[in-house]
Amino acid sequence: MSSGTINVSVENIFPLIKKFLYSDHEIFLRELISNATDATLKLKHLTNIGEAKVEYGNPMIEVKIDKDKKQLHIIDQGIGMTAEEVEKYINEIAFSGAEEFLEKYKDKNADDAGIIGHFGLGFYSAFMVANKVEIITKSYKDEPAAHWTCDGSPKYTLEEADKTERGTEIILHISEDDTEFLEESRIRELLVKYNKFMPVPIKFGTRTETLPKPEDAKEDDPAPTKEVDNIINNPNPAWTKQPADLKDEDYKKFYRELYPMQFEEPLFNIHLNVDYPFNLTGILYFPKLTNDLNIQKDRIQLYQNQVFVTDNVEGIVPEFLTMLRGVIDSPDIPLNVSRSYLQADGAVKKISSYITRKVADKLKSLFNDNREDFEGKWDDIKIVIEYGMLTEDKFFDKAQEFALYPTVDGDYYTFEELKDAIKDAQTDKDDKLVILYASDKEQQHSYIEAAKNKGYKVLLLNSPIVSHLLQKMESKNENTSFVRVDSDAIDTLIKKEDEPISKLSEEEKEQLKGMLTEIIPSEKFSVQLEAMDSDASPFIITEPEFMRRMKEMQQTGGGGMFGMGAMPDMFNLVVNTNHELVGQILNTKTQKKKERLVNQALDLAKLSKNLLKGEEMTRFIRRSYDMIK
Amino acid sequence: MSSGTINVSVENIFPLIKKFLYSDHEIFLRELISNATDATLKLKHLTNIGEAKVEYGNPMIEVKIDKDKKQLHIIDQGIGMTAEEVEKYINEIAFSGAEEFLEKYKDKNADDAGIIGHFGLGFYSAFMVANKVEIITKSYKDEPAAHWTCDGSPKYTLEEADKTERGTEIILHISEDDTEFLEESRIRELLVKYNKFMPVPIKFGTRTETLPKPEDAKEDDPAPTKEVDNIINNPNPAWTKQPADLKDEDYKKFYRELYPMQFEEPLFNIHLNVDYPFNLTGILYFPKLTNDLNIQKDRIQLYQNQVFVTDNVEGIVPEFLTMLRGVIDSPDIPLNVSRSYLQADGAVKKISSYITRKVADKLKSLFNDNREDFEGKWDDIKIVIEYGMLTEDKFFDKAQEFALYPTVDGDYYTFEELKDAIKDAQTDKDDKLVILYASDKEQQHSYIEAAKNKGYKVLLLNSPIVSHLLQKMESKNENTSFVRVDSDAIDTLIKKEDEPISKLSEEEKEQLKGMLTEIIPSEKFSVQLEAMDSDASPFIITEPEFMRRMKEMQQTGGGGMFGMGAMPDMFNLVVNTNHELVGQILNTKTQKKKERLVNQALDLAKLSKNLLKGEEMTRFIRRSYDMIK
Repeated sequence: MSSGTINVSVENIFPLIKKFLYSDHEIFLRELISNATDATLKLKHLTNIGEAKVEYGNPMIEVKIDKDKKQLHIIDQGIGMTAEEVEKYINEIAFSGAEEFLEKYKDKNADDAGIIGHFGLGFYSAFMVANKVEIITKSYKDEPAAHWTCDGSPKYTLEEADKTERGTEIILHISEDDTEFLEESRIRELLVKYNKFMPVPIKFGTRTETLPKPEDAKEDDPAPTKEVDNIINNPNPAWTKQPADLKDEDYKKFYRELYPMQFEEPLFNIHLNVDYPFNLTGILYFPKLTNDLNIQKDRIQLYQNQVFVTDNVEGIVPEFLTMLRGVIDSPDIPLNVSRSYLQADGAVKKISSYITRKVADKLKSLFNDNREDFEGKWDDIKIVIEYGMLTEDKFFDKAQEFALYPTVDGDYYTFEELKDAIKDAQTDKDDKLVILYASDKEQQHSYIEAAKNKGYKVLLLNSPIVSHLLQKMESKNENTSFVRVDSDAIDTLIKKEDEPISKLSEEEKEQLKGMLTEIIPSEKFSVQLEAMDSDASPFIITEPEFMRRMKEMQQTGGGGMFGMGAMPDMFNLVVNTNHELVGQILNTKTQKKKERLVNQALDLAKLSKNLLKGEEMTRFIRRSYDMIK
Repeated sequence: MSSGTINVSVENIFPLIKKFLYSDHEIFLRELISNATDATLKLKHLTNIGEAKVEYGNPMIEVKIDKDKKQLHIIDQGIGMTAEEVEKYINEIAFSGAEEFLEKYKDKNADDAGIIGHFGLGFYSAFMVANKVEIITKSYKDEPAAHWTCDGSPKYTLEEADKTERGTEIILHISEDDTEFLEESRIRELLVKYNKFMPVPIKFGTRTETLPKPEDAKEDDPAPTKEVDNIINNPNPAWTKQPADLKDEDYKKFYRELYPMQFEEPLFNIHLNVDYPFNLTGILYFPKLTNDLNIQKDRIQLYQNQVFVTDNVEGIVPEFLTMLRGVIDSPDIPLNVSRSYLQADGAVKKISSYITRKVADKLKSLFNDNREDFEGKWDDIKIVIEYGMLTEDKFFDKAQEFALYPTVDGDYYTFEELKDAIKDAQTDKDDKLVILYASDKEQQHSYIEAAKNKGYKVLLLNSPIVSHLLQKMESKNENTSFVRVDSDAIDTLIKKEDEPISKLSEEEKEQLKGMLTEIIPSEKFSVQLEAMDSDASPFIITEPEFMRRMKEMQQTGGGGMFGMGAMPDMFNLVVNTNHELVGQILNTKTQKKKERLVNQALDLAKLSKNLLKGEEMTRFIRRSYDMIK
């Protein structure tokens, strides 16, 4: 038996870094600017604790393109390196300088220094886009500057340089294949994408600023101008501040910074700020949402210590909240692992339930503090709340206090209030509370009117997931059922004790039914005679609640009963035996006239239920013109 | 000045591999099975060229879980390694064994050996999920087996083993955090995802097979069974074969293999097979497509030498073809680079235009070989073709030969045929060819009927992108315009020389117009009097083509004119002065009766155009019941 140490073959490390380290070449810039930021924050820390006896000043990071020489420069004014440190941190790949630094200073107020990074490896990502890399660096210590050069082979040279200002300049000699990184627009795009909120100012070019005219200037004199540094980032984004230091306008301003193409203002925001048992800051915004569940995801941005990581927060934020917008910043979220692993990770689970709780608390306080305002926003936020109630049981329980049930007339009730308001009129003979709802005020207008005329309240529930939510509500509330207004004739929607009186005799009913089933196709409608109010419509088409809801559940993401999504619609034709027209039909002598009356009444009932289409509609219109003349 | 060699710090390489090598832990299994496959194919190659004097046989790869010991085994019967080779290939990270192998044998018929892999590094991905890894391996050469063990530190041990069968066994001691990889269902899922079509059979467990009963068996005797190896993959998937060797049924069978949850058969397939100037094989299928552009993407799978890579082929396949399904296999597609880089890459551009050309050729031959069948499939494939015509100019040109224009009655014309068929009836007085179309047979039924009664042909164009496509068609075909049937009154849709005769005098017209504009809200409809056929409808609502199309273009992904997407709809109310009812309105004495007639006629016109909703509809229905009685 022998033993030994695994050897990493240096000759092959560069191609490997190119191929495997990052799937995206553009990442190199994020890595180099992270390094420059670390180097600056390290100096800040050392001056704070008195270890470095130099002036910290107002350091910035500069990014410069030299298109002629095909060079990209990243220059910082940070801690710098001595020749010895270059040997140690650069020439030994994967020796993480930051870890050692943290280890050394961990007791000295290090947690507010915000130091991250894996210096060694991140730096080498430069070779993904450059065939030669130079480092010119001057330490804050009183030692000469160093100049390191490497052409991508493992050979390097190191010599003294005459740089006198403190800090590090990285020079990338961009390779033929990557000249996109010499384009100003491309670099600007990357800086905005990854570095928009990094904590040290980043300068990229200059811009011209107009100055006020001197008092003695003539009217025609042009206003004087000056060139000023063009700072690409906001080093102090709102989420890094304390909520107490921010006004409503600050949150809105930050929203516009995050989504410059978004003209609509957010409805409200939730400031996240926790440091135990995990570290997380962030601001979530409720935008105006539509009823489309899918198109509005992937708008929350994930940062790690102000460095942009991704806009896919699936697994970190509970699914129903991925429709929100904003920023989450946490060093505690593992980044390079699979989504399935994320979902099983304990820390991530805690983060997810913390966010859920904060959102529920905020909604509750908005409801309590200004109910009218909350009601006004309900339609724009309900999809999130209803989806949350459906998918997270804890949220369902909390939402009982603020989830609203609007009527078609724009009154908003909590579920408890609703039950109180309707229990007298809408309890049926079996002591069951029947809650009526419509899904479309326009399409179900005549049914809604009929129910309102009976003194019932009709809710307007139009989310795409409403059938699932009602199913859950019914299972959580015994003796309560939700029934859509068009699922039965008005007198049978909520069954009461009193027996209705029919104008027709049993014999006449028999005769009527036989006549109607001859004219009306039985595969489309099953005819039911009901003795209703003579003011109610003569013909009404209904669609039983249970079948329709099962179908809807199948069509919107499962549930319901298997195979029902594709079942044909089932309709009843309820005929009001007490309506004048029905008597008229019964007494019409010629078959042709009778058919004409039945068909016209049936077509009008179809119109009520939005079922009259195409050729049938054209025929109906022609028949109607004829009947006017 | 000093110089030196960059040193890779071995102590830190394992954490780095864990963190950076792959973003997904699950990849380790794909890598280890790729290695096992390479080792097997290498042996095949060496026996083929006579270098290895052993029997190749029918080697397989076995994957075994030992849940009690928390071990996962991957066993191959391939080339194996001597102790010396283990030292060389395993202990030197990033020493690519496959590259050296290819280099050595490159002249000896190597290209059909299909050897890939980057042995060194892929193997180390095992440490992402295992805290200890063992290799027990016996070379095909007459040397003792070797047993290598490493616990994730860079220290390893190497000793002799008593393994006698040729090949390599990898034993992973799965770590606490990754016990998911000891679950049979999880491993099966991964094998199916990544290895379903790898070229060496992969055994995972056994299954029971029922044998035929012996002839002397009694009726009640149970049929005998035996345990057989459960092979998880199909080592010879259809795309690796020659088109000449495949029947239609083989393609359909392979489709079911690819999409086992898909019950619908594909409409047809396109076999891709090219080896110069790039290497690419694959089979694309046209499934039945709906009109929704977004939900059906990401169904094409990308392989590299039969190893699954991704199901996101954006940038490789032209966008309009990402709606297809199937497989593309190419070693020439760079994998670990950014999408923006892919789009600029020359080889990838060639691949993309090759695929476009092959698809166009196939469509043309389907059209030529069996037009009737092609017409029957048109509705299910048109969205791809129309989207391609819109976005790729070369495809637009080729599509002239097979793109179809169906009428509402189910006749299919090419554009040339269509022009011939309608030029007599549908050329207007300015010598412009006017092509009429409808977007919805049901909703525009009465308008379609009116046009057909005039002897016009009406196309049915209902793709979501149709307004963009028509814009392009008009710009490519001078003196041709597309007009929707409801964009003007029937007599002015295609303007002819003959002047219509009005039954009303100028004075009566004036009187009528004044009366109508009093009753009809001018902000909704602008009233136009037209002398039309007395059989045409009395009131017709029209919506001018240009405005409507610009709006639609804005709403479906840009184009059109900025800001028009949000403009209100513009309608004209065309009143047929020659219709009996219009004369009746003019002559009705009481204002109340007059209003009732106008409103009823207006509501009927609104019904034709699907504009009557909600309260207006309820009122109309009530009025109509009244008018029957």
